[in-house]
Amino acid sequence: MSRWQPNARGRLEQAALELYTERGFDQTTVAEIAERAGLTERTFFRYFADKREVLFWGQDALMELVTTHIADAPGSASPIDAVGGALQAIGAMFEGRREHARRRQAVIAANPGLQERELIKLASLAATMAEGLGRRGVPEPAARLTAETAVAVFKVAFDRWISAPWDTDLTQVIGESLNELKALTAGT
Amino acid sequence: MSRWQPNARGRLEQAALELYTERGFDQTTVAEIAERAGLTERTFFRYFADKREVLFWGQDALMELVTTHIADAPGSASPIDAVGGALQAIGAMFEGRREHARRRQAVIAANPGLQERELIKLASLAATMAEGLGRRGVPEPAARLTAETAVAVFKVAFDRWISAPWDTDLTQVIGESLNELKALTAGT
Repeated sequence: MSRWQPNARGRLEQAALELYTERGFDQTTVAEIAERAGLTERTFFRYFADKREVLFWGQDALMELVTTHIADAPGSASPIDAVGGALQAIGAMFEGRREHARRRQAVIAANPGLQERELIKLASLAATMAEGLGRRGVPEPAARLTAETAVAVFKVAFDRWISAPWDTDLTQVIGESLNELKALTAGT
Repeated sequence: MSRWQPNARGRLEQAALELYTERGFDQTTVAEIAERAGLTERTFFRYFADKREVLFWGQDALMELVTTHIADAPGSASPIDAVGGALQAIGAMFEGRREHARRRQAVIAANPGLQERELIKLASLAATMAEGLGRRGVPEPAARLTAETAVAVFKVAFDRWISAPWDTDLTQVIGESLNELKALTAGT
């Protein structure tokens, strides 16, 4: 079983989400995840440090994506539009993954420890965005204010997307939410 | 020692913050806090469930304050201004407490478990604001978007306030940050 397994990561992820949904996160073991995926525990640990990481892998790639998009935004883009472009890029990553995202969110919502981990991830996302804006020459507190606001928009857009009664694109919901934010703050 | 002690809560809080700063949160015991405050452990537990609650008490009162201010905002107030008034009310609670807030923040920043707890508190604050806006008839997603944005503004304003090189009012920094947000999102 030490040979390369086609799409081992995806199979482990799928098996883990199924088990977390059926039994709860705390009640699931790595051995059970590996068995359900038809793989060994050793293979599991080649991809994930522990069973929590199955829900939170890819964070470095996410931060890199955000950093790149903020850096590459046109020089004329305002701070909010520079981070808006980065949010759209994140949205595109989730294309075709709504069912997966919805399940993952349900698992997290059922477990306070995972909720805390998710909040830490969003805080890191805000910090990464603020740094990216800083490198574009956006001063403080505008950089952090824009970054925290963008993460607020993302959170709301993400929840709207996974709870929408019909299939829709996260990028589109993000765009709508950004426009709505502008209207809400411009109204006075 | 079972008699009422003048300002026991304040003395325990002060003693706890000193010890958390000197030794770290994890290294401090309730017995040590009580001793430093010149009180008994029994008195400590009359005010706080555990040593973590010394840093997080008053949350119910905070949520009530926010709910009341949002409900009492003029009918003509926009959603962002209704929550802005609630933020100002929170700011007023911190008057004369900058040194305390600064110390508390340093203790939290040094401890991942406390950081997570603080993020949960801010998430509850956003949920309370969104509910309050809902009761004013603000529909979703505008209510949650406004609430999450307001909490983003509060976070940034709070950090600016405690790290400012001179003494300043949190209410004033909140007002400036709200205006800055409006400028940042209106610019495009």
